[in-house]
Amino acid sequence: MAKEIPYKIYLTEAELPKAWYNVRADMKTDHRPILHPGTLKPVAAEDLTPVFCEELVKQELNSTDRYIEIPEEIRDFYKMYRPSPLVRAYCLEKALGTPAKIYYKYEGGNTSGSHKLNSAIAQAYYAKKQGLKGVTTETGAGQWGTAVSMACSYFGLDLRVYMVKVSYEQKPYRKAVMETYGAKIFASPSNTTEAGRKILAEFPDTTGSLGCAISEAVEAALTTEGYRYVLGSVLNQVLLHQSIIGLEAKTAMLKYDEYPDIVIGSAGGGSNLGGLMAPFMEDKLAGRRAPHFIAVEPASCPSMTRGKFAYDFCDTGKVTPLAKMYTLGSAFIPSANHAGGLRYHGMSPILSQLYHDGFLDEARAVEQTSVFDAAVQFARVEGILPAPESAHAIRVAIDEAIKCKESGEEKTILFGLTGTGYFDLSAYMAYNEGKMSDYIPTDEDLERGFASIPSLPGIQ
Amino acid sequence: MAKEIPYKIYLTEAELPKAWYNVRADMKTDHRPILHPGTLKPVAAEDLTPVFCEELVKQELNSTDRYIEIPEEIRDFYKMYRPSPLVRAYCLEKALGTPAKIYYKYEGGNTSGSHKLNSAIAQAYYAKKQGLKGVTTETGAGQWGTAVSMACSYFGLDLRVYMVKVSYEQKPYRKAVMETYGAKIFASPSNTTEAGRKILAEFPDTTGSLGCAISEAVEAALTTEGYRYVLGSVLNQVLLHQSIIGLEAKTAMLKYDEYPDIVIGSAGGGSNLGGLMAPFMEDKLAGRRAPHFIAVEPASCPSMTRGKFAYDFCDTGKVTPLAKMYTLGSAFIPSANHAGGLRYHGMSPILSQLYHDGFLDEARAVEQTSVFDAAVQFARVEGILPAPESAHAIRVAIDEAIKCKESGEEKTILFGLTGTGYFDLSAYMAYNEGKMSDYIPTDEDLERGFASIPSLPGIQ
Repeated sequence: MAKEIPYKIYLTEAELPKAWYNVRADMKTDHRPILHPGTLKPVAAEDLTPVFCEELVKQELNSTDRYIEIPEEIRDFYKMYRPSPLVRAYCLEKALGTPAKIYYKYEGGNTSGSHKLNSAIAQAYYAKKQGLKGVTTETGAGQWGTAVSMACSYFGLDLRVYMVKVSYEQKPYRKAVMETYGAKIFASPSNTTEAGRKILAEFPDTTGSLGCAISEAVEAALTTEGYRYVLGSVLNQVLLHQSIIGLEAKTAMLKYDEYPDIVIGSAGGGSNLGGLMAPFMEDKLAGRRAPHFIAVEPASCPSMTRGKFAYDFCDTGKVTPLAKMYTLGSAFIPSANHAGGLRYHGMSPILSQLYHDGFLDEARAVEQTSVFDAAVQFARVEGILPAPESAHAIRVAIDEAIKCKESGEEKTILFGLTGTGYFDLSAYMAYNEGKMSDYIPTDEDLERGFASIPSLPGIQ
Repeated sequence: MAKEIPYKIYLTEAELPKAWYNVRADMKTDHRPILHPGTLKPVAAEDLTPVFCEELVKQELNSTDRYIEIPEEIRDFYKMYRPSPLVRAYCLEKALGTPAKIYYKYEGGNTSGSHKLNSAIAQAYYAKKQGLKGVTTETGAGQWGTAVSMACSYFGLDLRVYMVKVSYEQKPYRKAVMETYGAKIFASPSNTTEAGRKILAEFPDTTGSLGCAISEAVEAALTTEGYRYVLGSVLNQVLLHQSIIGLEAKTAMLKYDEYPDIVIGSAGGGSNLGGLMAPFMEDKLAGRRAPHFIAVEPASCPSMTRGKFAYDFCDTGKVTPLAKMYTLGSAFIPSANHAGGLRYHGMSPILSQLYHDGFLDEARAVEQTSVFDAAVQFARVEGILPAPESAHAIRVAIDEAIKCKESGEEKTILFGLTGTGYFDLSAYMAYNEGKMSDYIPTDEDLERGFASIPSLPGIQ
């Protein structure tokens, strides 16, 4: 007889993974190397150590070790909110009348409200271990900034957050959370960096951008004794840390003799989907039974579904290295939407390569109103109010479950519920009032973005 | 060898309690009956059924059945967020350097953000079972309103929430959450009830009060076909439903051969402390080993520490029945503080009686700034950002743990962490900026409140 599956599957703390999984070790084709923006040569460790902690640079460049041990101090912190629950969405299944089994891995049950904490605590730990005084970072919507604030507070590190000015002004509560955890917040552009002062002189009324905030945070790390810079997505090290999501999810499913037919994740920079799918991707790369993977992105910022696979800058200011990735061009500006975490012009090089090679099976773009339809439907039956970013995955999970209803197939669906929407209620208000925008970039809009992708003769 | 105690103890869904515990069945002296405001006679079931659901009236008046079965539909809903974790505060213990063991029962892991959902879902279930169309309620800070919104959405009931006008205007996001779950929200006083119109005519600029919102919600229930009224604290039925907190906590502790020496709960109307301590109180009432119980209240609204044990009205408008309880007088207006859930002038009749009879050992009043000191200290080491209400219990738990450090006693402390502070960030901002008020009512302030307690010759 099949085991009875509870609403929520919690692994024990003893079952918490002891190592992260590095999917690069199993990839058939590694992603192309990151290039130095000046020399256009692959970056070496010594190019990165002024910016990132030494141990994190090693992780960033490590393409051979399949498993990397999670230090005990990080595991102890993880135990305050992990293993996170794998939830069987019985109520959603019932509401949809689907024969599909729907599971979601819920990462919103910590105060930062998202999966970002999984990497923030790791990056803070290595900074502390290196004897650093503090770190810098940028934040847009504020999830990443909150996660780093919690992590630095725990390890007694100073933290400077460059927060995009428009968010700084419109989201005082996000600022308040970070300050409660002891972080120092600057509205970006600020007059504390050369990059900030330059932009302020040129555009005194600017409300800032993530690209500008990145420039300021990197400069602050480079020019302050005992500081380094931390980043919450796109990087290989981040996907490595986030593999804990997928490792836990897979162990929990196997415990009940379950295995997903479809794995669905929202994709902005790739930190969540990369983490959730990693151990299932291991199966696919090894030629074993594996799920159909779907990356979900907003139709307003369609880097995988409509972007180019090319070397591009990681920031708008073109000061960072170049990565081979799916990109809309660093000058692409997505139309207004409420999923701040999914507005990045590019995509993690690892995910980009896996998508290019056909191992990440599918990317799907969804429109904002339909995403909020799914979010509200989910909230009403499953209780949890999802973040707009997470609701992109919910949209596709519901669509796939409805397909099963039509075909009668009893598929097992797993999606990542990355976070909660407590700080996104202005978005829900706009939805409740019917004031959502569903603007999709035209081909002309995309061409303007593509024009910013550098032409690099002889480099593939 | 002692079992290794994890950071978080999760009971299995099979261990979810199957019955609520009714402490009244074991009390040496039952609380004095609730009196009809017109006749001053004890209220009978038929006085209450126009306002409350029939089954809930039965529970309200039930002083004999020790256990009341939890219907399966409610248990199924509970499984979406229960059993809630019992957390061993290892990081807090370490930060304090205390030999005490500190546990907290965490009720903030659901979208309503507090324990209120435990009773909201029960009340909505009985309303649905009775074939009602909808329910009405009031909300101040919004926790209870959010919980009822979720519960009504789940069972397909209509909901009208009368929200104190000042909160309606200052907390648009709380309103947005409730609307997302389908509730209809009215700023109180509104022109939709006679009570509201009367107050608006007299005080057109009023920002409302909980007393006024109660009057409107009760009137709306009485005058709308197929509606009843629901309330989130003070009532016996609410304490009954909330006993699930204590039942789970006790089972989880016993699983690890643990038993608390001290049980600490914040107390506003008594719903949380009443629920947390119930099964431990059963031990005390039976003469077995039992903890020392501490009720924590704000110094700004000290109903137990400085109030009178007397019959009083449950609302400011004096339209509700009278209850024998610790009260500051229905006209008492607490000074501004940030714990909206702890501003009620009275206290649950059950808790009041237990305190009067010495079974609830101690009440302690704490000042606001010291409460937020504890909240921030806790957040930085344990991760969770507590609601200001919950932080009252944290303050006393820390104080008791520090006493253990001084005396060397290895006491086991259990406190209730009732909810999260995501919607209370304006309070944290005020704290971060050093703008907290610690006003404590003078004896003259209290006398003005006491003057509103009715004189009832011949009634004890």
